[in-house]
Amino acid sequence: MRFFSDNAAAAHPKVIEAIERSNRLDTAYDGDEWTRRLDASFSELFERKVRALWVTSGTAANSLALAALCPSYGAIVCHKDAHIENDEAGAPAFFTGGAKLMLVDGPGAKVTPQTVAAACDRIRPDVHQVQPKALSITNATEYGLAYRAAEVGALGELAKSHGLGFHMDGARFANALVTTGDSPADVTWRAGVDALSFVFVKNGGLSAEALILFRTELADEVAVRRKRAGQLLCKGRMLAAQLLAMLDNNLWLENGRAANAAAQTLAQAAPRRLVYPVEANEVFLRVSPEEAARLRSLGFDFYDWAPGEIRLVTSWDQGGEPVERLAAAIAAL
Amino acid sequence: MRFFSDNAAAAHPKVIEAIERSNRLDTAYDGDEWTRRLDASFSELFERKVRALWVTSGTAANSLALAALCPSYGAIVCHKDAHIENDEAGAPAFFTGGAKLMLVDGPGAKVTPQTVAAACDRIRPDVHQVQPKALSITNATEYGLAYRAAEVGALGELAKSHGLGFHMDGARFANALVTTGDSPADVTWRAGVDALSFVFVKNGGLSAEALILFRTELADEVAVRRKRAGQLLCKGRMLAAQLLAMLDNNLWLENGRAANAAAQTLAQAAPRRLVYPVEANEVFLRVSPEEAARLRSLGFDFYDWAPGEIRLVTSWDQGGEPVERLAAAIAAL
Amino acid sequence: MRFFSDNAAAAHPKVIEAIERSNRLDTAYDGDEWTRRLDASFSELFERKVRALWVTSGTAANSLALAALCPSYGAIVCHKDAHIENDEAGAPAFFTGGAKLMLVDGPGAKVTPQTVAAACDRIRPDVHQVQPKALSITNATEYGLAYRAAEVGALGELAKSHGLGFHMDGARFANALVTTGDSPADVTWRAGVDALSFVFVKNGGLSAEALILFRTELADEVAVRRKRAGQLLCKGRMLAAQLLAMLDNNLWLENGRAANAAAQTLAQAAPRRLVYPVEANEVFLRVSPEEAARLRSLGFDFYDWAPGEIRLVTSWDQGGEPVERLAAAIAAL
Amino acid sequence: MRFFSDNAAAAHPKVIEAIERSNRLDTAYDGDEWTRRLDASFSELFERKVRALWVTSGTAANSLALAALCPSYGAIVCHKDAHIENDEAGAPAFFTGGAKLMLVDGPGAKVTPQTVAAACDRIRPDVHQVQPKALSITNATEYGLAYRAAEVGALGELAKSHGLGFHMDGARFANALVTTGDSPADVTWRAGVDALSFVFVKNGGLSAEALILFRTELADEVAVRRKRAGQLLCKGRMLAAQLLAMLDNNLWLENGRAANAAAQTLAQAAPRRLVYPVEANEVFLRVSPEEAARLRSLGFDFYDWAPGEIRLVTSWDQGGEPVERLAAAIAAL
Repeated sequence: MRFFSDNAAAAHPKVIEAIERSNRLDTAYDGDEWTRRLDASFSELFERKVRALWVTSGTAANSLALAALCPSYGAIVCHKDAHIENDEAGAPAFFTGGAKLMLVDGPGAKVTPQTVAAACDRIRPDVHQVQPKALSITNATEYGLAYRAAEVGALGELAKSHGLGFHMDGARFANALVTTGDSPADVTWRAGVDALSFVFVKNGGLSAEALILFRTELADEVAVRRKRAGQLLCKGRMLAAQLLAMLDNNLWLENGRAANAAAQTLAQAAPRRLVYPVEANEVFLRVSPEEAARLRSLGFDFYDWAPGEIRLVTSWDQGGEPVERLAAAIAAL
Repeated sequence: MRFFSDNAAAAHPKVIEAIERSNRLDTAYDGDEWTRRLDASFSELFERKVRALWVTSGTAANSLALAALCPSYGAIVCHKDAHIENDEAGAPAFFTGGAKLMLVDGPGAKVTPQTVAAACDRIRPDVHQVQPKALSITNATEYGLAYRAAEVGALGELAKSHGLGFHMDGARFANALVTTGDSPADVTWRAGVDALSFVFVKNGGLSAEALILFRTELADEVAVRRKRAGQLLCKGRMLAAQLLAMLDNNLWLENGRAANAAAQTLAQAAPRRLVYPVEANEVFLRVSPEEAARLRSLGFDFYDWAPGEIRLVTSWDQGGEPVERLAAAIAAL
Repeated sequence: MRFFSDNAAAAHPKVIEAIERSNRLDTAYDGDEWTRRLDASFSELFERKVRALWVTSGTAANSLALAALCPSYGAIVCHKDAHIENDEAGAPAFFTGGAKLMLVDGPGAKVTPQTVAAACDRIRPDVHQVQPKALSITNATEYGLAYRAAEVGALGELAKSHGLGFHMDGARFANALVTTGDSPADVTWRAGVDALSFVFVKNGGLSAEALILFRTELADEVAVRRKRAGQLLCKGRMLAAQLLAMLDNNLWLENGRAANAAAQTLAQAAPRRLVYPVEANEVFLRVSPEEAARLRSLGFDFYDWAPGEIRLVTSWDQGGEPVERLAAAIAAL
Repeated sequence: MRFFSDNAAAAHPKVIEAIERSNRLDTAYDGDEWTRRLDASFSELFERKVRALWVTSGTAANSLALAALCPSYGAIVCHKDAHIENDEAGAPAFFTGGAKLMLVDGPGAKVTPQTVAAACDRIRPDVHQVQPKALSITNATEYGLAYRAAEVGALGELAKSHGLGFHMDGARFANALVTTGDSPADVTWRAGVDALSFVFVKNGGLSAEALILFRTELADEVAVRRKRAGQLLCKGRMLAAQLLAMLDNNLWLENGRAANAAAQTLAQAAPRRLVYPVEANEVFLRVSPEEAARLRSLGFDFYDWAPGEIRLVTSWDQGGEPVERLAAAIAAL
């Protein structure tokens, strides 16, 4: 029973079915009937005209967005615990042509207007220092905290006043929205977000993520960069079909709810052990090495996150018995 | 009835089944049981130890190979009609950090020791001119010509003597081998090839290509570059499973044979119209605009390749009636 | 007596004096009193507001201009014999982050609206092919031909209609203007040029070239890129002082006239041997290997440019006896 | 009386004379007689065979060295206050193609084996995290501290054991050696340093820095990268002549001694105000805003470095009266 990460779970059956249905001759690359429906489908979800491009990984979505928002000689403000800083092999520097990540700190990997402003204000406005040109936040954060629309809006205003492009890594976008109840529009473009990595693979998708551009004028450039990065697949219809299946009947929200519910089950088993509030599908618990060993001896796998701290991540398909058993085991520690 | 390109065909049912079977929890990225079988499976095929990495496009395979073989300040010798020059949006320059493509000419998009040597010899060995560091050929070529093992071997010797890394874009590797009868080993590493983009998506695959490294010491670097390019998918098992399905019982060769047979049917319908010998699954025909219009009026779609010249590409699944009807229509022009 | 290249000649005494005079404490980088006079001085010369930045080489000037005019994923149209293609070690690809040079042909290394339009029209407007985004011409060309203002204007119109940024490598700008009699303004911004590499080192300067931006809004970005390329020297006043000395009393034109006059002396010694009209300070002559050997035996050094063809380049300081002697030797062949 | 920075001082008269003497026709670029003497001259100084290349800025020297020592996908460990991190506009990322700076902390901008080891050990050895590949230290540090040979040696051993290339930014190399008494060899290659940015412009040079490669096999690649960066000047003899003038009779050490002596005069005026020991030509003093204003009212200019802290930098030509007056003014605060 693995609680390492949601990125390793099985894909939802409807996603697999969608791939099968799309498996017939159509125009190559992004000229097929499924891909041609993406802009309209995501525009409906976001209550405005957007451009939506499939890519095959969150790293690609993040990096393509950042390359469109930040010049090679600029800096991207992000949290020091951000995925783009720690877990993407320097992809943002590769895609942008050398842009710098300018790190801010803060509890729970949350970025605030105060920390961003402080980071920007430390930079002299001259040619010797790399100037901040973009802001990237992760929602839910790497520690499972969800941004409220108002929080994003405050960051959006700061980004605007400082001339920063604003990117949201929606690594666990569904999980965050399920918790906050905000609409997709309220937490993104209405709050000033320019581009969203709308991640589905952690949430029941198989191999398709969506890069949503609210600044639609960036789409042509991003499409070129996508091709240039080897991300324009021949049979792109297979990716588009996955995304459409996830949007259909709000499967993405349903899956997010399931994963969040499982996380809540775990959280409620030991509320006093929680390192952070559980607002998505990640649960960070204070447990001793001996306690961690006990859980493992019962067949549960997970990451040791920090000394005396473990991370449990639940998936859309992990409800029911395994979670109940883990919850019971935690409660019994 | 579309004869635009093999890259748009459906995937083979066994590939889809393999995806379904791999759709269950396993280690993320490339730690799963399918991916762990790749090196051994391809090593068996190539009769020596190789490293095999999945990627999601031929462009990614080509560019990653070239980035490993050519420094940012070097040049890659290739044919002026090569896919990497004309159809990959500058991806080799992006992945290498600015390497230059040094173009040679020659009929049928074939590269020869003579044209490569001449191109290299034109370059003064100083710091002002970009020095050639790699050679890339496409097999079968962009005009459907297959390299014999001896031809590749002659290029391999030249590459070695000139200090060039040697890459083969196996865009239609199966189609070429079906025609020449050469073994995978003979036409690659035994002939001096360092890295092969082993393309499956044009040949019945869905979304997985293999980058085969005969210089196995490059694999660790390439794995980092793959991640950095957003090509390390969370559920990589789905890609590995496709490749294994294609290798199983030599499905890749079976599919190649089917596509080639369809091309031969078309070729034999009008041997005097052929622009090039048909050695793979591409047929270039001399037809007048009026004749092309006639074919289109009968429901056949294809590219006008040059004035008075059309390109027909057959796929693994295009045997039988549609091809017979097109052959008859061509014969009747 | 060396006629290899004007880039190796001594600097003019007034340039050396200017360096000496500027050798005192002032603000570092580009904050000194000499640098602060550059914009105004060049604006006066060009009869409009321009931004002028010193750099230390023509390669740096060219590449910085191109990086400002062409995105990493675009192409720069230039002649196949252009210096940026053949003699700058791939610097344009390095500075732009991987942009491609799209080559045109034509006699005397001259670019024409027809060849540029043909090159652009060959590119399909899709994401698979690198799209042209800039045009670069060399004035005088690599074969010593000068562009007339009307010729540049026709290229400028084409550039505008095709959305291409327009760069002029003024490697021998003085020599060209001396011949055509055009004003600096007429042959640049009035003809649609966006950025000019105004080269002084071949013309009596020591180590300072000027990058002139007619699209002044690009200057801030270029200043950052200059720093990032290690081209922002601590004691920039020494570079600015050189440029001001060259502008003073039109020393640059005086030097250009001297070099051109020397070239005319050589040209008139053997008008029927000329490969190209002599419109600058380069003379390409048809001479047999034996004749070339004879000239060398008399103490003259030069490049063998092509079989049966030599290149002679004159410098600002090469008037008088040596040139007369070479002219006589050529006439006597 | 400016104490902002040594980078703005006048060049030494012997450097200017050397430029004048080199101002005559010779082979262009790096083929001239002065440049050809560099390797031997620096080899003598360093007591072993080295390769020495001139460049026009410390930023270029640093970035070229780092590009040779660190791949695009690697990280360079350096202090968070390092010049390459804060004051070079991201040049290392530009020259390397996107390498990351991995920051360590520590008093006085000094790097220690402990902080480097801790930084490296935090990185998981997988493809998701950027792996450290090089180490860069500044000597003297940005706060004027000199590394002893033994300190560098300990870092060199760590670099070797961790597979890190080792670069020293010798921004104030002369100043450091004057203080420690170490030989150039002992503090560099004998201590494991692979490449040294040997900076002269802050120390009486005009526009030439030397990049010293102890791993001589890197020189050919670096020479190409230098050209590609627009740093290969036509009249390179002018740069080589400066370096030779600085080496001649150890002018570089003489200048370093003069600047250090001036700094000592200032330091001794207020030993209890010193933020750091004064081991080079930089003096950081604790002074209140009112005290700083008093010094400025007396005609002294300098940077406010931090709240309640000012930075004074002395130059090779700043001995004698101005320094005595500033020392007296400080003592009188």
